[in-house]
Amino acid sequence: MEAPHRPIAVREFAVPDLPPCAALLRTSFSEVCGTDVHLWHGRLSGVPYPIIPGHVSAGVLDRVRGDIEGVDGSALKEGDRVVFFDVHRTCGRCRACTVHRTPTRCSARRVYGITDSATEGLFGGWSEFVYLEPGVGIARLPDTISFESYIGGGCGLLTAVHILERAALRPGDTVLVQGTGAVGLSAIALARLGGASTIFAIGAPQERLDLAKRMGADVTFDLDATTVPERLELLRARTHGEGAAVVIEAAGSARAIEEGVALVRDGGRYVIAGHYTDVGPSTLNAHRDINRKHLEIRGCWGSEVGHFLRAISLLERHAARVPWHEIGGRRYGLQSLNEALEDAAAMRITKALVDPWGRGT
Amino acid sequence: MEAPHRPIAVREFAVPDLPPCAALLRTSFSEVCGTDVHLWHGRLSGVPYPIIPGHVSAGVLDRVRGDIEGVDGSALKEGDRVVFFDVHRTCGRCRACTVHRTPTRCSARRVYGITDSATEGLFGGWSEFVYLEPGVGIARLPDTISFESYIGGGCGLLTAVHILERAALRPGDTVLVQGTGAVGLSAIALARLGGASTIFAIGAPQERLDLAKRMGADVTFDLDATTVPERLELLRARTHGEGAAVVIEAAGSARAIEEGVALVRDGGRYVIAGHYTDVGPSTLNAHRDINRKHLEIRGCWGSEVGHFLRAISLLERHAARVPWHEIGGRRYGLQSLNEALEDAAAMRITKALVDPWGRGT
Amino acid sequence: MEAPHRPIAVREFAVPDLPPCAALLRTSFSEVCGTDVHLWHGRLSGVPYPIIPGHVSAGVLDRVRGDIEGVDGSALKEGDRVVFFDVHRTCGRCRACTVHRTPTRCSARRVYGITDSATEGLFGGWSEFVYLEPGVGIARLPDTISFESYIGGGCGLLTAVHILERAALRPGDTVLVQGTGAVGLSAIALARLGGASTIFAIGAPQERLDLAKRMGADVTFDLDATTVPERLELLRARTHGEGAAVVIEAAGSARAIEEGVALVRDGGRYVIAGHYTDVGPSTLNAHRDINRKHLEIRGCWGSEVGHFLRAISLLERHAARVPWHEIGGRRYGLQSLNEALEDAAAMRITKALVDPWGRGT
Amino acid sequence: MEAPHRPIAVREFAVPDLPPCAALLRTSFSEVCGTDVHLWHGRLSGVPYPIIPGHVSAGVLDRVRGDIEGVDGSALKEGDRVVFFDVHRTCGRCRACTVHRTPTRCSARRVYGITDSATEGLFGGWSEFVYLEPGVGIARLPDTISFESYIGGGCGLLTAVHILERAALRPGDTVLVQGTGAVGLSAIALARLGGASTIFAIGAPQERLDLAKRMGADVTFDLDATTVPERLELLRARTHGEGAAVVIEAAGSARAIEEGVALVRDGGRYVIAGHYTDVGPSTLNAHRDINRKHLEIRGCWGSEVGHFLRAISLLERHAARVPWHEIGGRRYGLQSLNEALEDAAAMRITKALVDPWGRGT
Repeated sequence: MEAPHRPIAVREFAVPDLPPCAALLRTSFSEVCGTDVHLWHGRLSGVPYPIIPGHVSAGVLDRVRGDIEGVDGSALKEGDRVVFFDVHRTCGRCRACTVHRTPTRCSARRVYGITDSATEGLFGGWSEFVYLEPGVGIARLPDTISFESYIGGGCGLLTAVHILERAALRPGDTVLVQGTGAVGLSAIALARLGGASTIFAIGAPQERLDLAKRMGADVTFDLDATTVPERLELLRARTHGEGAAVVIEAAGSARAIEEGVALVRDGGRYVIAGHYTDVGPSTLNAHRDINRKHLEIRGCWGSEVGHFLRAISLLERHAARVPWHEIGGRRYGLQSLNEALEDAAAMRITKALVDPWGRGT
Repeated sequence: MEAPHRPIAVREFAVPDLPPCAALLRTSFSEVCGTDVHLWHGRLSGVPYPIIPGHVSAGVLDRVRGDIEGVDGSALKEGDRVVFFDVHRTCGRCRACTVHRTPTRCSARRVYGITDSATEGLFGGWSEFVYLEPGVGIARLPDTISFESYIGGGCGLLTAVHILERAALRPGDTVLVQGTGAVGLSAIALARLGGASTIFAIGAPQERLDLAKRMGADVTFDLDATTVPERLELLRARTHGEGAAVVIEAAGSARAIEEGVALVRDGGRYVIAGHYTDVGPSTLNAHRDINRKHLEIRGCWGSEVGHFLRAISLLERHAARVPWHEIGGRRYGLQSLNEALEDAAAMRITKALVDPWGRGT
Repeated sequence: MEAPHRPIAVREFAVPDLPPCAALLRTSFSEVCGTDVHLWHGRLSGVPYPIIPGHVSAGVLDRVRGDIEGVDGSALKEGDRVVFFDVHRTCGRCRACTVHRTPTRCSARRVYGITDSATEGLFGGWSEFVYLEPGVGIARLPDTISFESYIGGGCGLLTAVHILERAALRPGDTVLVQGTGAVGLSAIALARLGGASTIFAIGAPQERLDLAKRMGADVTFDLDATTVPERLELLRARTHGEGAAVVIEAAGSARAIEEGVALVRDGGRYVIAGHYTDVGPSTLNAHRDINRKHLEIRGCWGSEVGHFLRAISLLERHAARVPWHEIGGRRYGLQSLNEALEDAAAMRITKALVDPWGRGT
Repeated sequence: MEAPHRPIAVREFAVPDLPPCAALLRTSFSEVCGTDVHLWHGRLSGVPYPIIPGHVSAGVLDRVRGDIEGVDGSALKEGDRVVFFDVHRTCGRCRACTVHRTPTRCSARRVYGITDSATEGLFGGWSEFVYLEPGVGIARLPDTISFESYIGGGCGLLTAVHILERAALRPGDTVLVQGTGAVGLSAIALARLGGASTIFAIGAPQERLDLAKRMGADVTFDLDATTVPERLELLRARTHGEGAAVVIEAAGSARAIEEGVALVRDGGRYVIAGHYTDVGPSTLNAHRDINRKHLEIRGCWGSEVGHFLRAISLLERHAARVPWHEIGGRRYGLQSLNEALEDAAAMRITKALVDPWGRGT
């Protein structure tokens, strides 16, 4: 990606030399997620274009220099099926990392596919190979997890693990998820695994709502076919007149915020996780929406390596029954990435899979 | 108080008959707080005018029928100096009371001085006597706590105990309090007792800022003499460029909300507790103010009997050093209550003490 | 139950008069649980024998006096299938109930089937009718929940809801449950619903271990066929060498405590919930077992009405897939209660169902 | 320290070469703490004797190579008064560091003065200079904090910051601290700063109890002059018959554990933090001491860099009023370290200060 709004160019890079404890990944799959669309639209600040996008990827270790231990404790060797945590540097020393225990707010944080220029090397998954620098959090992908399931979950799953942690969900809580993109779908699945009673989802189009049901939603509202008051009324009718104990915002719209505070019950929790870019202001009434409701609103930014490992545990246990692999709708070769971005931006697919060695589907 | 916007009338009531386990309090002091001004301005819905205002009060037990045990475990007898929890009924059975553990959101909640009509009896402290119905949470006032300290804290102190619980303050956290009324001043005192490092306060006029310092604030900002960007810059200069770990909103203004989200550090907590009535909408940016900040916003409504007992413990231990008695600025007899409401509405005093047996000062 | 160690006698009682807001339940099922065996063995202090045992029961409202609202918000009428929370009184005023928010430690707490003498009325489920005094927490049993599922869960399910709350389980955590009685089996089911990754169970005999698997356990250890070191080794082999994130003690043995602290991983949580009676001392090493492990040990006593309502929500959502009905092994009529107690004490059945209108199976 | 039970020898080492981002500290003070006595008695396993003890130290930067930034965000230069976090390596990658968020249980953890052999370099504070390797968490010592206050707090203060975090102290809680050594005294001070109502301390001898009062204790019990039942009775008489909301074990005795579970109130928290070495088994009754009490027991191991930074914030705000400097009783030069260890082992002093450039006092 040379610059915002410019076509994706396919470039050749030299095979990198590996310093000790580094590795080279032969990419099996990467993804096109919402962040990539934002990158393409130039909506993230400080991006050192040109970049190689693709922050969550999976593949096979092609070369390993020295002894490398995975963050899961495994000894890694060439030929292993592996995945890696896309945040490759946080300082571990600043107040955000230590006193506040919010490493996703570390100012030194660097992320594959986003913060590193292509001039620095193969730091993105839209490439046949990815350079795994020393210290990257690599983990073996258990045999029971297909690449398709892992990438179908992708960054949305990692974010959803963090969201559910912030939501402090208890078995028996009702949950409503705003948004049926990759983050919302994984949030639905994790709420189901976490013992939610009834799960509601608001989204569009119909195919995503159908997938939301297969991921675990009980009731879906078509964003385009229902009004805000209708959804509130239908929700209350199913929740003792209260609203949902937990509402998760994974929609990224300013209007969703205004609707969300009304959908959560008094004393409930509202996790806001879909606003990765600025889409403008929302209007809230502090008395009605927050103070008198005794509400908790919790922003949720990024994910930590602990969420990455927990995601793998969850996939290992549950991937056979939860259709994460269905989130990745279609495969695109390197030659088709412009088409992939256009399809993602137009929401024609939930998630585009990047298949650097193939020709796509 | 016959109706909103009408002068307060002094009326005579018959001395009530006491059913078993009820008591009659000879009122030493009650208070005029912000809620009373709201009642007078007709800004609370569902109030059964005429009412006897005065929700937090203190006095001496004049008559007791049967054996009554205080919520503090004491046996109560005539002549005891006592205080009582103003919320005299919550159902203890509904989902808010039980499943959600948010009794302040119980729909059956009734509060002295607010929810009971004067036609039902002496359910308010602006009266020579208060009827304490069976089940009211009465506690002996320890000898070391003067009536002036207790009423100076008053309902603002109970609210502040709840606020600090919601704030999850840890020793060494920086705190900023928006508002230097009765709630804000008690929040400052409790943040100081809770081990805050630097405490900032925003308020006006100067006398309240001076009192804020005596309550425990380190740095005060005059709301009228500083601008929003100036306050943010000054705060950051004192907090490693971060903002405060905990911001407490006790100002009741829609603009305070918009400023508050910027004052709290990434990953911090923002407790919104000053919006007891609707003062209109606030505009927030979900990306910048909540999601990317990984912020927690916590509404805080009312207080529970546990907060009442904890407030007494705190006063018992600390009232000698914290000038709660200074919050109650001036005493008013029953004949001067209109003047008291006007003074409170005009913010000429922080809190008016009601002295039903005296002539005021 | 006339007294400890004495045969159960069947007695006739007058049909009680109902004060306003009281009701009479026609008992469909009650249960014989571990507490009943303890009562029979005289191991609980302060029990006002003679008593009518049976603390968790279900049935149909035979008579209702006045308008009664369920704790679930429903209007109750004769003919409704209902269940009720067995703790019929907590004071709601003492420090345990209010300041500490531990109502199960309220000293005024009274429980059907345990704390009320038969001379006071029909306060137990081993009876054709149960008197539901004013204020008892009654809830409609949703049509999708069979009496057999509800009583199969019974008091063990309510306890398990509280246990899982104390355990602060997060999806992806490994869980080990000590004990495969009624409490342990429900804890397994709730850990599964709560998203545990691998669930281990220690118990006996084999039929209970088989049921444990159907409730959701992945790996079971036969208490009689494995040794303590073997179980530790097998657990570690499945948990990255760490032990379980959460260990739940539902065994009631002093030796289980000593084993349990070794089974939980460093920084994990150990919930002790099986010691309803005193079975003697356990020996722990504070350095090795607690301090250096950075362990959390949490006792868990009784359950609250909120747990009762949450249990109903969970049953409503999940009873079709979780075989709670299998816990109740055999039905006993009133004439066979001595046999039921003997079978329960000898662990020949997991739980005896009491069927007051039938002859048993 | 050549080996356990051997006299301390004074050795000369070459001045180390500094790699980039390393520094050399001219030691102003180090300390002899309980851990050092354990090291001398050979009670810690895996120690690579010979070692240079002294894990918490303070001094002046003698030489700095390259640009070093402190963990407090400051730019560090030669001549700065600094302190450093003694845990110089945790891996930041293992499950303990990431998934479990318990970095003090990282198996790669290394600590100045304990885990590094003298053959590797100047990794301990009982030395004129300390080598600060790249990555060590260094912070400027604010001018308002004397070296004596910092070292008086020392490792006990860092541990106490962690303890109070585990204790989840709320303002108004009663607190009892078992042990009046360096950890216990700092725990008392932090409980006072955290708004405890009444603070009780159990310890000996009388001078330490006197210091405990100056640190913030309200009531002290002489361990040698009172019996276990007497202390329980006296505590209950002051706490509504309940016991303390929070009990902190900083005594390191097996008997303290057995007493501690009785001293904490039902539903309270018991933090066990004094068992850094194995002093043998304790006997608990799971029914009476844990399950029925609904108790929480929380082990607390080591401290994190966030606790280190929080300790500095607390000292900066409060050192003028809390006599941390009194904990360090006497100064010892390098020639007198054997005497220092003997005095510490015999409890003749609370803490020995090591003054490597002086002759002691």
